[in-house]
Amino acid sequence: MRPVVIGVGMVPVGEHWDMALRDMAIDALLKAMDDAGIDKVDSLYVGNMISGSFVEQENLGALIADWAGLGNIPAVKVEAACASGGAALQEGFKAVMSGLEDVVAVVGVEKMTDAWPSDATRYLAYAADAEWELFHGASFVALNALIMRYYLHKYGYTEEDLALFAVNAHANGAKNPYAMFKRRITVDTVMRSPYIADPLKLFDASPVCDGAAAAIVTTPEKAKELGVPKEKWVEIAGVGRAIDTINLANRDDLLVLKAAKIAADRAYKMAGVTAKDVDFFEVHDAFTVMAALSLEALGVAEKGEGAKLAREGQIAVDADYPIQTMGGLKARGHPVGATGMYQTVEAVLQLRGEASNQVPDAEVGLTQNIGGTGSNITVNVFRRV
Amino acid sequence: MRPVVIGVGMVPVGEHWDMALRDMAIDALLKAMDDAGIDKVDSLYVGNMISGSFVEQENLGALIADWAGLGNIPAVKVEAACASGGAALQEGFKAVMSGLEDVVAVVGVEKMTDAWPSDATRYLAYAADAEWELFHGASFVALNALIMRYYLHKYGYTEEDLALFAVNAHANGAKNPYAMFKRRITVDTVMRSPYIADPLKLFDASPVCDGAAAAIVTTPEKAKELGVPKEKWVEIAGVGRAIDTINLANRDDLLVLKAAKIAADRAYKMAGVTAKDVDFFEVHDAFTVMAALSLEALGVAEKGEGAKLAREGQIAVDADYPIQTMGGLKARGHPVGATGMYQTVEAVLQLRGEASNQVPDAEVGLTQNIGGTGSNITVNVFRRV
Repeated sequence: MRPVVIGVGMVPVGEHWDMALRDMAIDALLKAMDDAGIDKVDSLYVGNMISGSFVEQENLGALIADWAGLGNIPAVKVEAACASGGAALQEGFKAVMSGLEDVVAVVGVEKMTDAWPSDATRYLAYAADAEWELFHGASFVALNALIMRYYLHKYGYTEEDLALFAVNAHANGAKNPYAMFKRRITVDTVMRSPYIADPLKLFDASPVCDGAAAAIVTTPEKAKELGVPKEKWVEIAGVGRAIDTINLANRDDLLVLKAAKIAADRAYKMAGVTAKDVDFFEVHDAFTVMAALSLEALGVAEKGEGAKLAREGQIAVDADYPIQTMGGLKARGHPVGATGMYQTVEAVLQLRGEASNQVPDAEVGLTQNIGGTGSNITVNVFRRV
Repeated sequence: MRPVVIGVGMVPVGEHWDMALRDMAIDALLKAMDDAGIDKVDSLYVGNMISGSFVEQENLGALIADWAGLGNIPAVKVEAACASGGAALQEGFKAVMSGLEDVVAVVGVEKMTDAWPSDATRYLAYAADAEWELFHGASFVALNALIMRYYLHKYGYTEEDLALFAVNAHANGAKNPYAMFKRRITVDTVMRSPYIADPLKLFDASPVCDGAAAAIVTTPEKAKELGVPKEKWVEIAGVGRAIDTINLANRDDLLVLKAAKIAADRAYKMAGVTAKDVDFFEVHDAFTVMAALSLEALGVAEKGEGAKLAREGQIAVDADYPIQTMGGLKARGHPVGATGMYQTVEAVLQLRGEASNQVPDAEVGLTQNIGGTGSNITVNVFRRV
């Protein structure tokens, strides 16, 4: 058995005017340690995209380990744009695999609401190619709108078809106490929301928000030694990560998330599973079109048929390919560097049978976390022990 | 034998108006691959402190791997303030140790001169505690000046004593073609330079600059399989990393770099050596007082006696405890996130016998890389193969 997650914790996603970045991270971290029943760890990995710009704070490894009272442990920040959380988990996984550290804490955190919205838009665009995209005025929303328009055009979908991903996310978020948006919406809600970059509407997009989520990773041997009950264990069965061109202009095909495909192939292979064995998919629906492209890259749908799964009602919790069971980025929220760790927590809760929208008998779950417009993607496969 | 460095590369440190961040990183990286005689790697780690603020670009893993033509590999950025380079090397080391990746590229890069100097000062202070230090107006230089004043006061040293660290660094930098400052200076040069935060003078401080340095890490087995001649191999014999309180107010003792002590103990133990076995020390002399405190924390000098080593002429290349053999942060330059990788390249060149200020028969070398005011410190021990 590969390294296991033995404890998870998170703060509700939202606009946390009363909590600083460190407060959220510490809260999630201590909850995860509490969940595992441990009071110390060997090292800390922090997944965060852009605290320097948002809250004028770097050196998050030291900041969080220090203020959480973890002692003089090794601690660093891992950055892979919006995939920072998923990447941080993989670094923690590698640290355990390397034999250098036994019990590793991983926390993803982002505090976005302290900045003006216009600044937030600018900071998020740092995930794109600063010199070839941002310099010319392309925001992150604009780049995703390009992809969305091409997807609709090429495969003949309507905006309503993609809206179904947002509807599904909100339906699931409504039952998740940690979600930012707990209201169900309809296709009409999405269609009546304003265009923020035609054809992308406000309700196609995930929100700017704050949050932190954490997990404790260790070897099965150490988990046993620590006396963590096996019901808490969830195996990290496979990990994969790959990059693609950072700017869209250099992509072979705008509508293929090549990095997700490669990352998924690696993770599936390591876990010894295929897409068919996966009971739920936490995909990176920062924008509705990304959910569709992700399902295609992960091998759940054929090319051009990701949106069809939504149209055919196959993505709900009780359907064949449940996605975004806790609300996804759209409804749970997308505190960028924290998202991969929220996905991790969600996968763990599902596989322990403790999720608020439980997929019956879930044995294998997958999280897919996208950085940039598909330029840096992590895929992690989790398995019930 | 532990993982080995099989190739190194760097760009001269300086004000690179003609090179973007990506250009420098790619240049260093391709030189390192060329040095190792390889044309592909399994993954990339980027050490960088704060590209978001300096050049509005994050997602450096994807950016650099993409533009360097490395293909769809895993790639992330590692941040530990000014210790980002040393930390990135350790993550690369762990990746190889984990068995998940065989040949790993590590590049440290920082592009600082595109920002206004006043902004650079602000961005660097993000390594301190934003809410408890920066908020109150403390710059990074001011915090180091506090430490310097206390050091002089407590142990009865003069400003001239500490100036000797800068004099030594410049003497070595004068012979390093990759150094930013290639002129020898005297104690008088330091003493006549303006106070930037009393008692810290301009020549006590390392410069704001640009640079990138890289190394290729792999297992001895793979190095052999790749046909890399053994003369190129340098073993990463031990690694250690630790944090301390991020703000100075919470330190037990302002004059003890506790994180360096713990990190060094770990690295020495893993390498099976003590300070006595080390032939040269690349310490983090961002400010002259930090060189003194580092020598004490690394076990080279007793508490309060670090500066004595400089006064007694024991830190020169041909003396007992050579430090900053390539100019240190002071003269080679301190492109913050790149520094730990410049130290790595220097250690490797020394142990291959190819350094511009060669320490005769060097067998073991140590690099120590400080993030924040001592809050996040990495120590790596290298050994000749």
